[in-house]
Amino acid sequence: MSGTLKIADREFNSRLLMGTGKFSSNEVMRDALDASGCEIVTVALRRADLTGKNDPFANILEFIDPKRYLLLPNTSGANTAEEAIRLARLAAAAGLPKWVKLEIHPDPHYLLPDPIETLKAAEVLVKEGFTVLPYINADPVLAKRLQDVGTATVMPLGAPIGSNRGIETRAQIEIIISQATVPVVVDAGIGAPSHAAEALELGADAVLVNTAVAAAGDPVAMARAFRKAVEAAREAVEAGLPTQLDHAEATSPLSTFLKSA
Amino acid sequence: MSGTLKIADREFNSRLLMGTGKFSSNEVMRDALDASGCEIVTVALRRADLTGKNDPFANILEFIDPKRYLLLPNTSGANTAEEAIRLARLAAAAGLPKWVKLEIHPDPHYLLPDPIETLKAAEVLVKEGFTVLPYINADPVLAKRLQDVGTATVMPLGAPIGSNRGIETRAQIEIIISQATVPVVVDAGIGAPSHAAEALELGADAVLVNTAVAAAGDPVAMARAFRKAVEAAREAVEAGLPTQLDHAEATSPLSTFLKSA
Amino acid sequence: MSGTLKIADREFNSRLLMGTGKFSSNEVMRDALDASGCEIVTVALRRADLTGKNDPFANILEFIDPKRYLLLPNTSGANTAEEAIRLARLAAAAGLPKWVKLEIHPDPHYLLPDPIETLKAAEVLVKEGFTVLPYINADPVLAKRLQDVGTATVMPLGAPIGSNRGIETRAQIEIIISQATVPVVVDAGIGAPSHAAEALELGADAVLVNTAVAAAGDPVAMARAFRKAVEAAREAVEAGLPTQLDHAEATSPLSTFLKSA
Amino acid sequence: MSGTLKIADREFNSRLLMGTGKFSSNEVMRDALDASGCEIVTVALRRADLTGKNDPFANILEFIDPKRYLLLPNTSGANTAEEAIRLARLAAAAGLPKWVKLEIHPDPHYLLPDPIETLKAAEVLVKEGFTVLPYINADPVLAKRLQDVGTATVMPLGAPIGSNRGIETRAQIEIIISQATVPVVVDAGIGAPSHAAEALELGADAVLVNTAVAAAGDPVAMARAFRKAVEAAREAVEAGLPTQLDHAEATSPLSTFLKSA
Repeated sequence: MSGTLKIADREFNSRLLMGTGKFSSNEVMRDALDASGCEIVTVALRRADLTGKNDPFANILEFIDPKRYLLLPNTSGANTAEEAIRLARLAAAAGLPKWVKLEIHPDPHYLLPDPIETLKAAEVLVKEGFTVLPYINADPVLAKRLQDVGTATVMPLGAPIGSNRGIETRAQIEIIISQATVPVVVDAGIGAPSHAAEALELGADAVLVNTAVAAAGDPVAMARAFRKAVEAAREAVEAGLPTQLDHAEATSPLSTFLKSA
Repeated sequence: MSGTLKIADREFNSRLLMGTGKFSSNEVMRDALDASGCEIVTVALRRADLTGKNDPFANILEFIDPKRYLLLPNTSGANTAEEAIRLARLAAAAGLPKWVKLEIHPDPHYLLPDPIETLKAAEVLVKEGFTVLPYINADPVLAKRLQDVGTATVMPLGAPIGSNRGIETRAQIEIIISQATVPVVVDAGIGAPSHAAEALELGADAVLVNTAVAAAGDPVAMARAFRKAVEAAREAVEAGLPTQLDHAEATSPLSTFLKSA
Repeated sequence: MSGTLKIADREFNSRLLMGTGKFSSNEVMRDALDASGCEIVTVALRRADLTGKNDPFANILEFIDPKRYLLLPNTSGANTAEEAIRLARLAAAAGLPKWVKLEIHPDPHYLLPDPIETLKAAEVLVKEGFTVLPYINADPVLAKRLQDVGTATVMPLGAPIGSNRGIETRAQIEIIISQATVPVVVDAGIGAPSHAAEALELGADAVLVNTAVAAAGDPVAMARAFRKAVEAAREAVEAGLPTQLDHAEATSPLSTFLKSA
Repeated sequence: MSGTLKIADREFNSRLLMGTGKFSSNEVMRDALDASGCEIVTVALRRADLTGKNDPFANILEFIDPKRYLLLPNTSGANTAEEAIRLARLAAAAGLPKWVKLEIHPDPHYLLPDPIETLKAAEVLVKEGFTVLPYINADPVLAKRLQDVGTATVMPLGAPIGSNRGIETRAQIEIIISQATVPVVVDAGIGAPSHAAEALELGADAVLVNTAVAAAGDPVAMARAFRKAVEAAREAVEAGLPTQLDHAEATSPLSTFLKSA
């Protein structure tokens, strides 16, 4: 595992991707992104102005500097492959970079992604030259099919979006990681720094966080906390995590109690 | 929860306590302590020279600066209250500060602490003016009795010493925290930055780490990782962790799909 | 939840489905099926003689009485929708009932099911009049799509086939159950009676077990054990499981200690 | 592990012990005990008439046949060793058998047992010839000390009394079992048949259930469910539970897809 995160032809130092929903204001969002140290920021295309008359992200770009961050448009709200593809094309036509976080979730209660539509859209968009980062259930076979189709990452969920419940799909994510030929980014459900750290310690390449930061009492402080947790876990992986034992191991020899005492 | 950790009459900024066993060399230990940012370092009394002829920690003190760190002697290896008390008294007689991490574990396989002997020793040592930090099983009734007796902290275990298995006693530790009138320090079992973060997110005041750092491929890098994870979790608690939901919550309104598209 | 399990137009009293792989002999299998109390038995079509010259399950039927058990052919070993469909059609042409347990798992290491191929085959087979029971990852969106297509059940996995690791996908299965309009049968990973009971207590309608029985020291005794565990959990659900509390609740009033003593 | 459960000098076929608190009526209790198949029934001494003027369990014995069940008096409500000892002696003086389930829980919120007072009382009562079954936190060192003192069992808790949360102390109970020289009975927290089965599959010798049955919608049906779950798990242990694998294992050979098809 190299020190940097390579997605498609780009390299990143940060292992933390950030979402932009639910912030109380654009100013708070901007400061939280800054504190997070992230280099990839995802924005819902539905919020952008895609009429072609104006700069689609004109307003948002006042708060997200495209020179500093890779702006990753996402298709959140799309119910079908067709809708997602249309959104991605409109964004590209409007001059955005051809990167897309593919999110197709017809289910309004749990916002879980549709495997069929996601694969269908990925096939089309990869062929059209997009760099595709699909949000998926923690399904190892689907993850494999997507990377075989040419997606730039796979992004399995830890738990439903916004639930803050952590890595409930741990066993499945471990299989995905063991079979991955592209970076694995755990996306959704990460509600605390320990969850983000756990994902990276398992071997994930990065995590995407949104609600836990945006809905925190102090989003900027929380962004800083996630930054540190992600750096911590990544450094721990590189430093060599110890194995788990089923018994204790003394920190000092126990055979000889201090006789001189 | 105030920003600093107050134990007895002392205040600390770091929430990470470090042990000193199992390092490959004193030099590595010294550098790892430095990288960890810790302010409290525990050392086994059995390793010290307590004959009274020499400075008991002469050799170790070449590597642990007592002006920088609070040196916390521990009674590791003691099988009974009597042995632990004797060790603590010898240390005080030799001029060490009257702080003691009480560890009484007769069991050689899991190194689990003895509740009866620990309470007995705590009662005696508190009366003799020691500041007592007892290592215990995650037993809420025992924790309460110890704080009632006047110990300065309670230190429940997450998992057996050196096992690196994390917070296996989560439900019990939550009860201990809910009843605590002194700082709760999770001690033993913490094998990865995510484990340390989880303990603090649960509401523990601090964690003690040893094996995971000392036995890492790169102990200094691992110490830095734990430092960051502990800071991350602490900052997250202060920033206000979000609640967990049993459903998803959209990061952006879902009712209206982009009609203009 | 009615007392019986209704799949398509058939009703069953038992909530335990059995697989037939890995038994040391057909005789042991027969006796284990008998002891399990099951009414549905799945058999791999690949093992049957589908040449059309002979009764396809001639040999197996000496050990599985079709008057007692519903014989549920499965497509285990199929890598694609096409292969699975072909197997199902051959079975029907050979005179078997038009029920099929759809298993499409291209992955040889974890035997995890392919969501895309499974939906594709389900659509075709449902249209052709088959009663389709698909084996799937614990993916709530896929489960919903399959029931919308007209499958007779959904069969999410608890853990990889033959792993005996229990219900690792608990959170996802809870969502599947909450959205189900057809019976939910937990299939794969169930390695102990407690796992089977847990699935039913969560609200699953039935479980399918194979390896844990076939690979047991005493398969007949183990089949009996699973039968009892499944009956136990089902009866507990009907008797009204109590809610979980975050505190204790005394079994007798605690306010008055026996004063007369 | 032999087929029967031996406690002190008595042998039992059932692995399920029942408590008698919280039932809506004595008649319901009687029928639930009958359905449970239990052979040991625990009753709070505080409820008995210990004045010496009347048969202490006169009323209760109308509902619990002492020829059928071993009546196990418990000291629930005692806050100290002294109170527990006094209760046990009064019971013996009143002619009850010298068996006692030792419960000392000063904490009114979680009803967790006190390790110090429990060991103290156990020492006294064992010396006086009582058969002592102590209720304890899942503390392996305490369990070992108790069995060394001569208690007839150890009874670690799975979760707080009446919480129905299952085996939250799994890792600690595994250690207790590995060191046990007397039967291990998991007591408290067992809220569903799967929890009872899990305890026995881990290697516990028996379980004690009360709230989950008494507070069920239909206590008699629930008692029957627990009986079956306990029998199931016990039979599974004797039949040889399979090991857990980290990969899948096919139920039929996968190398050759049906060529004739």
